[in-house]
Amino acid sequence: MFTKYFNDYKIGETWRSKGRTITEADIVNFASLSGDWYPLHTDAEYAKQTPFQQRIAHGLLVLSVASGLLLFEPGIVVAFYGMEHLRFVKPTFIGDTLHVEMTVVNLEDRGDGTGIVAAHQEVKKQMGETVAISVVKVLLNKYGK
Amino acid sequence: MFTKYFNDYKIGETWRSKGRTITEADIVNFASLSGDWYPLHTDAEYAKQTPFQQRIAHGLLVLSVASGLLLFEPGIVVAFYGMEHLRFVKPTFIGDTLHVEMTVVNLEDRGDGTGIVAAHQEVKKQMGETVAISVVKVLLNKYGK
Amino acid sequence: MFTKYFNDYKIGETWRSKGRTITEADIVNFASLSGDWYPLHTDAEYAKQTPFQQRIAHGLLVLSVASGLLLFEPGIVVAFYGMEHLRFVKPTFIGDTLHVEMTVVNLEDRGDGTGIVAAHQEVKKQMGETVAISVVKVLLNKYGK
Amino acid sequence: MFTKYFNDYKIGETWRSKGRTITEADIVNFASLSGDWYPLHTDAEYAKQTPFQQRIAHGLLVLSVASGLLLFEPGIVVAFYGMEHLRFVKPTFIGDTLHVEMTVVNLEDRGDGTGIVAAHQEVKKQMGETVAISVVKVLLNKYGK
Amino acid sequence: MFTKYFNDYKIGETWRSKGRTITEADIVNFASLSGDWYPLHTDAEYAKQTPFQQRIAHGLLVLSVASGLLLFEPGIVVAFYGMEHLRFVKPTFIGDTLHVEMTVVNLEDRGDGTGIVAAHQEVKKQMGETVAISVVKVLLNKYGK
Amino acid sequence: MFTKYFNDYKIGETWRSKGRTITEADIVNFASLSGDWYPLHTDAEYAKQTPFQQRIAHGLLVLSVASGLLLFEPGIVVAFYGMEHLRFVKPTFIGDTLHVEMTVVNLEDRGDGTGIVAAHQEVKKQMGETVAISVVKVLLNKYGK
Repeated sequence: MFTKYFNDYKIGETWRSKGRTITEADIVNFASLSGDWYPLHTDAEYAKQTPFQQRIAHGLLVLSVASGLLLFEPGIVVAFYGMEHLRFVKPTFIGDTLHVEMTVVNLEDRGDGTGIVAAHQEVKKQMGETVAISVVKVLLNKYGK
Repeated sequence: MFTKYFNDYKIGETWRSKGRTITEADIVNFASLSGDWYPLHTDAEYAKQTPFQQRIAHGLLVLSVASGLLLFEPGIVVAFYGMEHLRFVKPTFIGDTLHVEMTVVNLEDRGDGTGIVAAHQEVKKQMGETVAISVVKVLLNKYGK
Repeated sequence: MFTKYFNDYKIGETWRSKGRTITEADIVNFASLSGDWYPLHTDAEYAKQTPFQQRIAHGLLVLSVASGLLLFEPGIVVAFYGMEHLRFVKPTFIGDTLHVEMTVVNLEDRGDGTGIVAAHQEVKKQMGETVAISVVKVLLNKYGK
Repeated sequence: MFTKYFNDYKIGETWRSKGRTITEADIVNFASLSGDWYPLHTDAEYAKQTPFQQRIAHGLLVLSVASGLLLFEPGIVVAFYGMEHLRFVKPTFIGDTLHVEMTVVNLEDRGDGTGIVAAHQEVKKQMGETVAISVVKVLLNKYGK
Repeated sequence: MFTKYFNDYKIGETWRSKGRTITEADIVNFASLSGDWYPLHTDAEYAKQTPFQQRIAHGLLVLSVASGLLLFEPGIVVAFYGMEHLRFVKPTFIGDTLHVEMTVVNLEDRGDGTGIVAAHQEVKKQMGETVAISVVKVLLNKYGK
Repeated sequence: MFTKYFNDYKIGETWRSKGRTITEADIVNFASLSGDWYPLHTDAEYAKQTPFQQRIAHGLLVLSVASGLLLFEPGIVVAFYGMEHLRFVKPTFIGDTLHVEMTVVNLEDRGDGTGIVAAHQEVKKQMGETVAISVVKVLLNKYGK
């Protein structure tokens, strides 16, 4: 997604990533790394008794995997600027395969040789169901600056 | 932070987490788990030539560590609802120790026995410098429902 | 468990932790970290021919997970002092969910502002079966010292 | 160490393992796997203000590394039976290199073709300083049973 | 395998390692460590539509696991010298248990107190099917040098 | 590197990857995953007394990192076919930053809609020193088949 200079984006353009299957190992590894062992993620007995009836992936695991599916080109990307209106709308279960769909929704030229691309991001499952939405903002270089 | 029922929060109340030092191993482990090997995080030679002059932690690593420093009580927390206005305002370097400060900014009773606590979250370094801000929204149970 | 000052414990008091499911990933990750690839833990073909008929968790993985389910309060806990009479009494299989039950069995005031709490620890499965027993000794501060 | 049948041990015999350096990554990885983020292990600022003046390895990381330095021969070892009198006598710091020294202290023939070897275990640093002691008990097969 | 001095090998001698089951966690962990998230390894939906119909282990994971199943004796092994004619001849699936079979095929005395042992290496599954072949070359010390 | 169809390669064409710094955490994580704890990689005291005077990265870690720096396009890459004449010519130390340089050396049309691209691969350090060489063979689709 973020492989071309700021000048080259148009509002409305779209992009789709490759996929990655969320495994039990990913959930264990994310609980490990983050320190978030909330039992809905890591206690199968507890999870059985929730409305989900099984363990679900951490929201931030979903976001982290999504970030790894994007492409960031050195020399072009200056910084991950921020995110707006993040919502986790459906659970991600063990075995679900996620991909990311992006649509450019705003372009803000900062007048200093850089600009912010804002893109609506949907993380989706194999059957097209959306699990997380947000607006991602990335600071990019312009060329010819 | 999220260890009491929705009814028991007041706007303006604050909370502070323990700390955790961000190590080189954390950055390698997060690049590994997410698949995000952007060279600013994982190529020391590249990083030397950026304005930061050294490798910096991924923004989502900072958020993930912050989430692990919060406390989520089973039976009270229903879901991580979402986030607003996330900004990465300063870099986190290898060796920085992060903690989280929260201030409750909004309480939305959903009338169904649950409510959303919105808290302004600042992730800060050892010297008090803020590295990331956002508004975190968590869905909690009410008691006596 | 270890969230209050030495003065506040009584012999006979009990405590129960949250749970955590032991996954195949945990066993692989513990074999990795420890370097203990004994085939009963990591070779499914070998394990099939043992009395257990399947892979089992390392005893020290069980203990390590148990330690993470305890609560240690900074400022109160001085050190993990030691352990007595550790026995692995039943195997832990992939998919078992463990929790810890503690009973205070001895209190030794050291006369220097600290004391040792000795607790009988049982690590148990979802159906209540005990997999490991020991006496855990933790050095805690007293208040008012 | 545990590479020969029960019949072949003598009280007083000794064994020495290879070494392994405890790195910052090991401590982070053990905190991750166990869920034990006690700040003495993982918060450098907190650790500076303790008598140790720096982060120290978890006691169970020391034991887990020690277990990986032992040798367990399939077909001979039946089970890790248990441990007695475990004490953490000195801190292990980042960069310390540990090895294990064992002395056989008891042999208990169980009369069923197996026996328990009890060995005094010392985990030592590069300069010979002991960090952990215990008596390890391993259940082994006899030959000619 | 590499536990004796160069002088003690004979062409034609063979050796067989212990086994290790390749789990989904191993594939996720290797994708993580290497950064190779090719979807045949980590996207279950993609893999379903390939001739393999399921995810397969990375070739270099197979080799890395094989290297861990060999034995390298300090003081004897000088260096992993290289490899010839590596071929991945069959896929390794999740749940397959691998072991290594070696046959010494060449001995090159270097006249400086060291020699190169070349061994034909086959990594095989539980049912004897070969998944990878190569010639491994290891530089060893001679005794009496 | 492997992002275009077999038809589009020419002998002599070259490609250069991004970089990745090899950290102490990478060596620990690779020892963990592979099970290869040879002390030259993981025992700092032992390593001090070798000609290298410090720990060095495993050869297969170097290769695994290199594989992750390559690009493999789904739909184009059929399989990692094999490798020839792998040599580890210099040690990789903690802190070295590696990248990969490739030169196409052979093209073998298999007459079945696929072909094998053979490329001379050099893994190099930040100052241009080569640490590993090999010929990598990848099976690719042709277009218009």
